Amino acid sequence: MARFLKNKNASIGKIPGEAVFIGVKKVDSVSCEIISYNNDLIREETAYDLKNLPKISDNQTINWFNITGLHDPLELKKAASYFNIHPLVLEDITNTGQRPKMEEYDDSIFIVFKMINYDENKEKIFNEQVSLIIKENILISFQEIHGDVFDPVRERIRKKRGRIRNMNSDYLCYALLDSLVDNYLVIIEKIGEKIETLEQEILKSTTNETLGKINTYKREISYLRKTIRPVKESVQRLSVIDSDLINESVRPFLKDLLDLSTQAVEVVETYREILSDQLDIYNTLINNRLNEIMKFLTMFSAVFIPLSFLSGVYGTNFEYLPELKFKYSYFIFWGILIFTAVMIIRFFRKKDWL
Amino acid sequence: MARFLKNKNASIGKIPGEAVFIGVKKVDSVSCEIISYNNDLIREETAYDLKNLPKISDNQTINWFNITGLHDPLELKKAASYFNIHPLVLEDITNTGQRPKMEEYDDSIFIVFKMINYDENKEKIFNEQVSLIIKENILISFQEIHGDVFDPVRERIRKKRGRIRNMNSDYLCYALLDSLVDNYLVIIEKIGEKIETLEQEILKSTTNETLGKINTYKREISYLRKTIRPVKESVQRLSVIDSDLINESVRPFLKDLLDLSTQAVEVVETYREILSDQLDIYNTLINNRLNEIMKFLTMFSAVFIPLSFLSGVYGTNFEYLPELKFKYSYFIFWGILIFTAVMIIRFFRKKDWL
Amino acid sequence: MARFLKNKNASIGKIPGEAVFIGVKKVDSVSCEIISYNNDLIREETAYDLKNLPKISDNQTINWFNITGLHDPLELKKAASYFNIHPLVLEDITNTGQRPKMEEYDDSIFIVFKMINYDENKEKIFNEQVSLIIKENILISFQEIHGDVFDPVRERIRKKRGRIRNMNSDYLCYALLDSLVDNYLVIIEKIGEKIETLEQEILKSTTNETLGKINTYKREISYLRKTIRPVKESVQRLSVIDSDLINESVRPFLKDLLDLSTQAVEVVETYREILSDQLDIYNTLINNRLNEIMKFLTMFSAVFIPLSFLSGVYGTNFEYLPELKFKYSYFIFWGILIFTAVMIIRFFRKKDWL
Amino acid sequence: MARFLKNKNASIGKIPGEAVFIGVKKVDSVSCEIISYNNDLIREETAYDLKNLPKISDNQTINWFNITGLHDPLELKKAASYFNIHPLVLEDITNTGQRPKMEEYDDSIFIVFKMINYDENKEKIFNEQVSLIIKENILISFQEIHGDVFDPVRERIRKKRGRIRNMNSDYLCYALLDSLVDNYLVIIEKIGEKIETLEQEILKSTTNETLGKINTYKREISYLRKTIRPVKESVQRLSVIDSDLINESVRPFLKDLLDLSTQAVEVVETYREILSDQLDIYNTLINNRLNEIMKFLTMFSAVFIPLSFLSGVYGTNFEYLPELKFKYSYFIFWGILIFTAVMIIRFFRKKDWL
Amino acid sequence: MARFLKNKNASIGKIPGEAVFIGVKKVDSVSCEIISYNNDLIREETAYDLKNLPKISDNQTINWFNITGLHDPLELKKAASYFNIHPLVLEDITNTGQRPKMEEYDDSIFIVFKMINYDENKEKIFNEQVSLIIKENILISFQEIHGDVFDPVRERIRKKRGRIRNMNSDYLCYALLDSLVDNYLVIIEKIGEKIETLEQEILKSTTNETLGKINTYKREISYLRKTIRPVKESVQRLSVIDSDLINESVRPFLKDLLDLSTQAVEVVETYREILSDQLDIYNTLINNRLNEIMKFLTMFSAVFIPLSFLSGVYGTNFEYLPELKFKYSYFIFWGILIFTAVMIIRFFRKKDWL
Repeated sequence: MARFLKNKNASIGKIPGEAVFIGVKKVDSVSCEIISYNNDLIREETAYDLKNLPKISDNQTINWFNITGLHDPLELKKAASYFNIHPLVLEDITNTGQRPKMEEYDDSIFIVFKMINYDENKEKIFNEQVSLIIKENILISFQEIHGDVFDPVRERIRKKRGRIRNMNSDYLCYALLDSLVDNYLVIIEKIGEKIETLEQEILKSTTNETLGKINTYKREISYLRKTIRPVKESVQRLSVIDSDLINESVRPFLKDLLDLSTQAVEVVETYREILSDQLDIYNTLINNRLNEIMKFLTMFSAVFIPLSFLSGVYGTNFEYLPELKFKYSYFIFWGILIFTAVMIIRFFRKKDWL
Repeated sequence: MARFLKNKNASIGKIPGEAVFIGVKKVDSVSCEIISYNNDLIREETAYDLKNLPKISDNQTINWFNITGLHDPLELKKAASYFNIHPLVLEDITNTGQRPKMEEYDDSIFIVFKMINYDENKEKIFNEQVSLIIKENILISFQEIHGDVFDPVRERIRKKRGRIRNMNSDYLCYALLDSLVDNYLVIIEKIGEKIETLEQEILKSTTNETLGKINTYKREISYLRKTIRPVKESVQRLSVIDSDLINESVRPFLKDLLDLSTQAVEVVETYREILSDQLDIYNTLINNRLNEIMKFLTMFSAVFIPLSFLSGVYGTNFEYLPELKFKYSYFIFWGILIFTAVMIIRFFRKKDWL
Repeated sequence: MARFLKNKNASIGKIPGEAVFIGVKKVDSVSCEIISYNNDLIREETAYDLKNLPKISDNQTINWFNITGLHDPLELKKAASYFNIHPLVLEDITNTGQRPKMEEYDDSIFIVFKMINYDENKEKIFNEQVSLIIKENILISFQEIHGDVFDPVRERIRKKRGRIRNMNSDYLCYALLDSLVDNYLVIIEKIGEKIETLEQEILKSTTNETLGKINTYKREISYLRKTIRPVKESVQRLSVIDSDLINESVRPFLKDLLDLSTQAVEVVETYREILSDQLDIYNTLINNRLNEIMKFLTMFSAVFIPLSFLSGVYGTNFEYLPELKFKYSYFIFWGILIFTAVMIIRFFRKKDWL
Repeated sequence: MARFLKNKNASIGKIPGEAVFIGVKKVDSVSCEIISYNNDLIREETAYDLKNLPKISDNQTINWFNITGLHDPLELKKAASYFNIHPLVLEDITNTGQRPKMEEYDDSIFIVFKMINYDENKEKIFNEQVSLIIKENILISFQEIHGDVFDPVRERIRKKRGRIRNMNSDYLCYALLDSLVDNYLVIIEKIGEKIETLEQEILKSTTNETLGKINTYKREISYLRKTIRPVKESVQRLSVIDSDLINESVRPFLKDLLDLSTQAVEVVETYREILSDQLDIYNTLINNRLNEIMKFLTMFSAVFIPLSFLSGVYGTNFEYLPELKFKYSYFIFWGILIFTAVMIIRFFRKKDWL
Repeated sequence: MARFLKNKNASIGKIPGEAVFIGVKKVDSVSCEIISYNNDLIREETAYDLKNLPKISDNQTINWFNITGLHDPLELKKAASYFNIHPLVLEDITNTGQRPKMEEYDDSIFIVFKMINYDENKEKIFNEQVSLIIKENILISFQEIHGDVFDPVRERIRKKRGRIRNMNSDYLCYALLDSLVDNYLVIIEKIGEKIETLEQEILKSTTNETLGKINTYKREISYLRKTIRPVKESVQRLSVIDSDLINESVRPFLKDLLDLSTQAVEVVETYREILSDQLDIYNTLINNRLNEIMKFLTMFSAVFIPLSFLSGVYGTNFEYLPELKFKYSYFIFWGILIFTAVMIIRFFRKKDWL
């Protein structure tokens, strides 16, 4: 399966607006975790049948519906009809190969983001699609699997830390997005450290292993870039959106989130360039080393080749070979050998090859 | 014939607005398949003479005229006069080297797209020009050959699946464009998988065959890019067009189509970069391998060259060569040989070449 | 003379607005070919003295003045005063190093284009400057030499083909520009075919000749790009200009021309990229070949170097060399040689160098 | 710790708007240096408890509060409440990994810049975060450590040089930003000189040391670029901001500052390109040198290999080897050796390899 | 001193708006050459004390004050107060490292350009800063040294050539800028010719000298680019400025100047690309040559190494070596040698290495 493009075959011939799950089934059944809160009270429950979601009786509480499991379109359709979700939106939620985006509807804002996860052993980044729908007093989130980066937000809601219990669903949405983008930066930092360490390694050794690392990081950084760039676009549009669902008091936070996203994109770009530079340096070092080796071979050969030749000449069996008769021939022969070697070495010195 | 630019010679000296077929004749005769439908009824027929197309008596049905075969301008002119098509539009329809585009006219919208087809044996992408004209209740499509990616749409019309039977010609047009763009993604995914597999292959073997593959994919990705980028532009313009022919209810679908096209363009760009990276890695690996080979040769030569020289010296036939007389000369000789070899190998170790 | 920038020295110290001919004189004398036509009649004549151009008595005909020869500013000034041409415009007409552009004046539109010509023997593109001035009922064109790509237009006027005899000077101008841009595409296609053929050639042979071809096409494509890009800009501006001189009925044709120019620019860019890719592949192939050669040399040397060394050892003349005495020494010696060779070859196999 | 991205782990799970110090603690305690001045008087004092900052009794003086030490959020919160600073702003001040930016609030303008410092021994650039808040008559600056580039500004205030004593807090802010950007240019110039010197060095020697330098400068220039580009953006926005806090008379100075920042960014880009060019040239020189070496080795080998072979032939011990018997064989043998050598050298000359 | 950034150290701690000369003093004293003219009269004089500049009694003449020498801020301040020049403007005039720019003030337009000079022996471009201030009837120009590219303009004023004597200070300013930009093109052409000549040279010889030339031109083209790009920006802004100081009649000339600047920037970019291509070709040629050399060495070695080995075998002194006894052994030996050589050469032919 192509990693940079999720399985499209599954969607061939599909009716537009029809929810089809694209991806790998990762949880057994669809469930919905509900947190209702206001400044005074907090209520948590979990629903396993999306048909029987609890009635939202009044506007007194902010209600966060966190639905896990996207593999069962039928179950999700129940939720869709409960929350009055447009079919195209539901289609985007279940198509986990969706590009991150933000869309404004009459009574809701729909956001698709990616939650990323870095497996340090495999040196590979995985992403999971997270969709958010903001409505008046309601925030609905959709995830593929259990386990997310939202626990700090849950803690803040439960422990009443910060201003979250006094704010509306827009702030809750911001808090979740902020967790996602913060998580990007944490993972970029992890890879970044490895890349920066690599720089020293390259100067020391130019093995295929080092090259493999450069290659791996390049691919992961490409993957991150592809994921984060549309996220930044969406945050940008979200921060300037003119909607009743976004209060003025939340805007500075969204601006802050935009700063964070911009930083994420810029750092990813910088690491991309650093990796390209590293590959260049790596190549140059290899060339340098080849030069050094060849210089050595050339010098070595050049010194001994003429000497061997001379030995060969006096190893011939010509009957009449006058030099062989003289008593000191052998020592003169050695003298010539040494003289020749010295001259060649001096020639190399002059050429600056030694 | 240049693949990236269709035969222009044929159009030299041509009158602007004159329909001239550019390309290779692919079907025997021009034919028109007609599907008329509304929520209640559906009627299918095929016309082989474009002069005698059936009258559209009332506005009760949506009528899709799918004309196959562009090689016969005379026949097409009949259809043009029947549908009141501008000569410049007809010219664009028959010029199969046309760049994908969207144009708005008073009573119609004219769209030129490419339908692509991937021959996995030849590893080559072929494209066929598809032109669409949207009019009130009417959609006219023009194709070069029989066989297209529209069958799922036909099925949906016939089987009344989804909302298509309740919608107008704008939705039908969307459905067709959606099939085309979906098909792009399916083909990108096919090539993408091959490209991602290639990454492992390169690290294992750096044969010319691997290089040939990189080259092939590069060229096909270039070709895809050239085809898809103007398509995205056209979808973008279509999604914001202010025309009576496009209903508000179809706009979200066009937005969705734009997302899809954007994704297609982005993924193609990503694969382009990945292929460039792969070529870089390939080159570096070759250099690495050369280094390894040269190191081996150098070490081997450096060890044996001086030994051969020494053998040569004691193979000379000088009459007075004192060392040859001593009883243990031969064993001392071997000692020197081994000592020399060891010293050279240690030198290499120190230089980190071994 | 720099090919990418025409002789600027000639214009040093020149008064702005002064017409100075920059280039090489290519015709003997300035002449003007005049075609006057309307739907009913057509009149052709040639004037050799630009002072005595025929009076345009009425607005009944469209008059195309095609002036050939830019080397004689004095003669051209006569025409300038006859047609009331701004000195800066005349300066641009005679300065054949002018960048393609479009300028709007009160009573006229001034366009500078390049007519290109591909000498297939020299594999070189030459360009000639063509300037057009549109006025009410009048079109004036300026060329450096006789012979142009406008003959099909002349034929259409003479033979009353298409709509040209019913249209105004704006349509005539469009027809001429269309001929020019069509000609670009024809020449791009010619070079394009050669470039696409080259791809196969590179995979087969990596001679300097192939490299020379890549280089030649790169330079010509650069030259084309430099010529065509400002042309596209000008067509873009012309297609949206708000001038009485451009009728609404001509606009769709200008849009079409813009499509054509965009396609020209895009194809040139694509070929540029293909050539860069080809150079990369070429380099990689050379490296691959070097590797293959070096592997061969290394294997060959590695097998024979130790064998020669052993022969050398038993070629020494030590008086006491026990091995030489045994009867089967020679055969054991051969045995050792063969064993050594086999071991080395196996080592190479294991290293995957064979 | 990744250098291109400050420690994000510390901020995981943090409440938005909560001030958390990210970085390394660099001073013992937080202190505040206060300079109050107008045209007539100047007062300087230092506060070590941010709770007891002196009351600003009237609007007669401009007050510059320079707070040093960001590691103690509690202490800073006191200042925040004293100056009425938004929690998000305080968070940005203490997060020393913040991207340079400018933000407008109702009663204040908030600016985050980087002060850079170049350690010439380590050839490394360090940056320190400087935050500025402009309010009516008040400027608050936050730094990580003692020691900054603001001394010239302090001198100008103390010695009443220039117009600073007659201007408001906006001009003071400009003066500080100007010092920061001026300092960028000074450091760019230092590195720039080294880079330009390197150019000569490369042409002379292609050692690994030279390569290490190119690498070091590339990384530092990347670092500078990452720091300075958002600074330019911020200055751009500051120069067009429509705020009561920025007087018209200060605008030309901000325009000037923008020119300076633009120049900084452009020069950094230019040096980036020069370094890339240098690496290219370096690589080409290495290749050239390898060629030269290999040519030498090839020539040397080619001359002696056949000679050694011939010696070998006449060194064989065949009983019947007629040439060995003739009296002048040895001299003819030498003649053949010399003739062969000369022919080979001539062949090389012809091939232009010598 | 960094060439791409003028000495910034000198300006550290400087008061904004304080004129400080940055650069190398190039003339002895500041002087001002004054040309006053209208259609009827012309007056030229030179002032050596900027305090006693002649009164401009009426608006009857256009007055061009050309001040040479920027090293003496005190003297320039006199002129500044005489002409009522803003301190920031004076600062920019004396800071010869200023980036080219255009600024509009209430009663004046301030332009900073660079005058370039190409030393063909050193193959180096030098630039000198030229500042212009346009006021009603007055044009003030500031130069570092005597000698400029304005003589043709002076001649046109003196000899009443062209329209300059009838136009205002805006046209005079245009004339001067036109001279500067024309001069850019002349110098680009000079370098361009050398670059285009280089192309042939590279295909013939790949010496270090050729590489040095590529490097030199790359650096100079970078330098030109850095100088000319902001000039184009300024001309662009000048051509659309809405100021009373620029008459409508001058606008076409400014448009023309913009065309010229655009052409300059484009040609510089083209030459940059050509140089990059040349370096690529150069590298490929080196690789090709290396390949050729290595092929030769490999073939040569491969032919002789086995022959030498065989000679070695029959040069051994084994007592029992049967082949040596046969009468025709020697001739059979030669036969085997020749057969082996032929087989190896055929193998090479098959491998396409010969």
